Amino acid sequence: MRARVLIRPKAGILDPQGQAVERALPALGFDGVEHVHVGRLVELDVGDAGQLDGMCQRLLANPLIEEYEVQLLDGQTGTPSP
Amino acid sequence: MRARVLIRPKAGILDPQGQAVERALPALGFDGVEHVHVGRLVELDVGDAGQLDGMCQRLLANPLIEEYEVQLLDGQTGTPSP
Repeated sequence: MRARVLIRPKAGILDPQGQAVERALPALGFDGVEHVHVGRLVELDVGDAGQLDGMCQRLLANPLIEEYEVQLLDGQTGTPSP
Repeated sequence: MRARVLIRPKAGILDPQGQAVERALPALGFDGVEHVHVGRLVELDVGDAGQLDGMCQRLLANPLIEEYEVQLLDGQTGTPSP
């Protein structure tokens, strides 16, 4: 089963990459862009989708400073992390 | 309008982060994981969604080695890059 994990900085955690993008865009002529956040994307084939939460907690994300969202790419919707 | 950009290494381009994850997971007891790819996630509020492709081409992605997919987060589906 194909799965996608979206990993973002938690609210309140510094996001220097997002800030850098937000400042760079107007210089390239792109105006009206706000609230930019940069995170990571992990896509993988997994035999047991029940293992995905454990993978995120233990390897893919840092739960102290990042939130993650798992999407199963079979027409099912994503479930945000608690 | 909230938008999400998914950026991945193009097929055939080395993905060392994906390889590292794929090798690390079995050591943590997660078996049956294949085809891991690690990319970037950019989420932003944009006034004109027509500018998103230009932003990807010029700043957010490196079109030589990365493919990107724009998703508008208002119930519309994503459109992969050409």
